[in-house]
Formats: sequence, C-alpha cells, structure tokens
Amino acid sequence: MPSTTKPMLDTYPKSINLDRARLAAVIDALNDCAQACTACADACLSEDMVGELTRCVRTNLDCADICTTTARVLSRHTGYDANISRGLLEACATACRSCGDECGGHADEHEHCRVCADACRACERACRELLATMS
Amino acid sequence: MPSTTKPMLDTYPKSINLDRARLAAVIDALNDCAQACTACADACLSEDMVGELTRCVRTNLDCADICTTTARVLSRHTGYDANISRGLLEACATACRSCGDECGGHADEHEHCRVCADACRACERACRELLATMS
Amino acid sequence: MPSTTKPMLDTYPKSINLDRARLAAVIDALNDCAQACTACADACLSEDMVGELTRCVRTNLDCADICTTTARVLSRHTGYDANISRGLLEACATACRSCGDECGGHADEHEHCRVCADACRACERACRELLATMS
Amino acid sequence: MPSTTKPMLDTYPKSINLDRARLAAVIDALNDCAQACTACADACLSEDMVGELTRCVRTNLDCADICTTTARVLSRHTGYDANISRGLLEACATACRSCGDECGGHADEHEHCRVCADACRACERACRELLATMS
Repeated sequence: MPSTTKPMLDTYPKSINLDRARLAAVIDALNDCAQACTACADACLSEDMVGELTRCVRTNLDCADICTTTARVLSRHTGYDANISRGLLEACATACRSCGDECGGHADEHEHCRVCADACRACERACRELLATMS
Repeated sequence: MPSTTKPMLDTYPKSINLDRARLAAVIDALNDCAQACTACADACLSEDMVGELTRCVRTNLDCADICTTTARVLSRHTGYDANISRGLLEACATACRSCGDECGGHADEHEHCRVCADACRACERACRELLATMS
Repeated sequence: MPSTTKPMLDTYPKSINLDRARLAAVIDALNDCAQACTACADACLSEDMVGELTRCVRTNLDCADICTTTARVLSRHTGYDANISRGLLEACATACRSCGDECGGHADEHEHCRVCADACRACERACRELLATMS
Repeated sequence: MPSTTKPMLDTYPKSINLDRARLAAVIDALNDCAQACTACADACLSEDMVGELTRCVRTNLDCADICTTTARVLSRHTGYDANISRGLLEACATACRSCGDECGGHADEHEHCRVCADACRACERACRELLATMS
C-alpha cells in the first residue's frame, strides 16, 4: 500500500518552493530508512556475534534518529527556512553514507544489514538529489 | 512504492511472537499517521483561521510523537516485553482516537484535516486489532 | 546548573490544571531518564559481555523513546486532553518499571546500569505521583 | 536539581575522545533547548495573536526535533564517527541560531520567547564550542 505522504502534501494550502512529488519521495525514503535502521539495530542485537556488530548497532541508532528528524522538518512548509533544511539534509546524507557503508560491510553475512544498506543508500541519494534542487 | 517494513521484518533472524504481516501493516499505519499529523499541524499553521485550530495543532503534535515512538518499539523484537508494547499501543490508540475526532471535526473545511483524520482512524484500528491478538 | 523547565513553564500565559512545580519536576525526571537510558544502551554495547546485555539495551531504547515523547506531551498545555496524558503516563511508568528492574539486575556489575536504574525508578515514581493528582 | 548527564557519562567504561564535563554540558544545553522550544511553540499557540507567531511555532518545532536528536547522538560513544557528530552539530547550531533570532524578535512581547531565545543562544554557543574542540 502506498504511503499517504503525497496525498497529504497535496493538501498544503499555500505554495511550497520545492517539487511536491520529489519532496514526498524523499520523506518516504527517510521514513523507510529510519524504520530499517531501527529494525537492523535490533536484529544485530539478536545475533550470536553481536559483539562484532556494536559499531553497526550504534550507527543504525544515529541514522534512525537523524532520518526521523529530517522527515519531520521536510514535512513542514510554514515559515520555511532554507538554512535549516539544507544543513539537516547534509547531516542526514552523511549519516546515511556512514550507515550504508557499515551495514554494507556485513551484507553478505546478515540479510538485515543487506536490506538496511539498500535503504540507507536510497535515502542518501534522495537527500542529495533534493539538496541539488535547493539553490 | 511499498515501504521496506515487511521485507525488513522478514530478515529478523529469531522468532517473533506476533504475525509479521500484521505487524508490518501496523508499523506502516503508525508511520503514515505520524507523517500526516506532522503535516496537518503545519498546514493548520498556514491557515488564516489558525486561531480556531490551535487545539488541532496540539493534538496533531502529540499524536505524531506517540505514533513515532510506538512504531519504533514495535520494530524491536529482542528481549520482548509484552507489558511495554501493550501499554504503549493502548496510549497510542487513545491519541489516534482524540486526533481523529479533532481533525474529523474540521474535515469539511480543511482537506488536510480530512486526510489526517482518515490516517488517524486507520492507525487506531490497526493498533486495536494488534492489541486483540496479544493475549 | 538547574534546567530551564520550571522558568519556561512559568511563562505559559494561560492557566494549567496541574501544579507547575510538580509538572516541571516530572518533565526533568523524564528527560534525565531518557538521557540515562540512551547512554546506558550505548555503554552496554561497549562491554565485552554485550551478548548478555541485549535485553537491557533493548529495554533502554524503548524507555528512552517513551520518556522523550512523554516529556514533550507534558510540555504542552494548549487544548489539553487528559486522556492522552493519562494513557501515556501509564505506559511510561510501565516502561520505567521494566527498565529499572532490568538495569537493577546488572547494577552490581555495571555502574552505568546502577545509575540508570536509579533514574528509571525516580522517573516511574514521578509519573505515578503526577497520575495520582489527575482525577 | 542537577541532571544525571555528567554522572551517567562518568560511567562509560571505555575512553571518550572528547572532554566529559564539556560533553555533559552540551547535552544538557541541548535538552534544555529542546524543552524550551517545545514549550514555546505551545505557548505561542495559546496567544491571541497566534496568527503572527506561526513562523515562530514552526522554527521552535524544527529546533526541538534537531536538539533532541543531537543530544541522543552525543550520548553515544561506541563506534564513534566524527563525521556524523560534526555534521549534526553544525545543523543544530544553524537551527538554534534561526530559532534564537526568531524568538528574540518577540522577546519584548512574550516572556516565553525571551526565555526560549536565551536557551537557543546558550545551545548554539555550546554546539559551536564543542565543534571547535573536534579537530
């Protein structure tokens, strides 16, 4: 089932100075990544070799927090401040890059790291593409 | 595009004592509701009649916070504690009920309240159905 | 340095139907508990015996999320809905009880679990005392 | 009552490559700012002239979310990634600057904006000072 992000964004009664379809796709990518990172941290905890995955858990937790906050900020348009959005998107792309690399390093052994790495990379790409449209 | 919640849940390497498809649907409903409430609060702020929508903004903010936290807790399965999940799901259903009622009261005037009320009601239903399966 | 919670609460321009000093103390206890749980989860990850602490990490993460959300809801007074506050406070007290018990079980071995258990118990007590004043 | 941030930080069993007293002060400033912004957004909603404060509400909500996430990331030390901390601290300082300016512009009329502007400025300063120590 598709998310309600795009239908919701279409109801905003004033103008938005970013493309609504692209914005909705970024918010969905952020929420997907936050969920994947939260679940991957927990799946790492359930592995017998959790002692070798502690850096992965930690990066997952950071990435989940940052993606959730970025999705919230991008869901607001009233009194838009480009500096806040831009700084946060850059921080978020950095976190997604780190987490994608970390999970990517365990992708062959742990299916949860493989799915999570894909979500992180898709999210990093979406953040960077949105940043490129914000002059 | 469907979310990665279900594919991610399928990678959890140990057993989960709840149905995975149902659990994924609840997590998606929670994240949808959190995004709708965050966006609805912001859309209310952009309305000329914002002075009549302050209770709606506030309830939206509470509901968004509670749904986000509930989605995170339900995304974890290691060291499962039924008391925490159950108490939080009940609090979340209560918040969704209040927010659905509040937004529902403005649904004829504000499209964002109409879409948000639907998301709140779907989320309340999903939380209550999951609660019913947790003996 | 004392927090700014009480000075901030004193600036709310309308009436609040709960005692402001008590409310500020509960919000501070919630934020303290959230920080302690976040830090305790991370300290557990750094222990060589992390494999025996995975339930503790998970409960810490849940408790941190729930306390942060409860502190936010209690920081809002406009359009107050007692049902939302009460349900969330009950869920929060349950999470603090579970986390205090879990961390308390490791208090002799891990100083971080001892400090965190104290924060959880203080927070549970503060939540229950506030609940008792909400008729 | 002082927060438990510093006592909690002192229990971290491995080394931390930042000064613990400074780090605890930054985390406390972040949590103070997050609480002040959440409360200021709500106090703005209760003002008769809320229609003139919508940009303030929005900036408060962004700043609260970003400060909460930054406090969480700084509370973790396992598997430290300087890039994530640095990028987020910069985004957070930017948000605090915007919110301090916005609230500062209403400080003469609204006591909640005055207290909140002070919290934002203290938090921005704390973030920038910590950044300066991270080579």
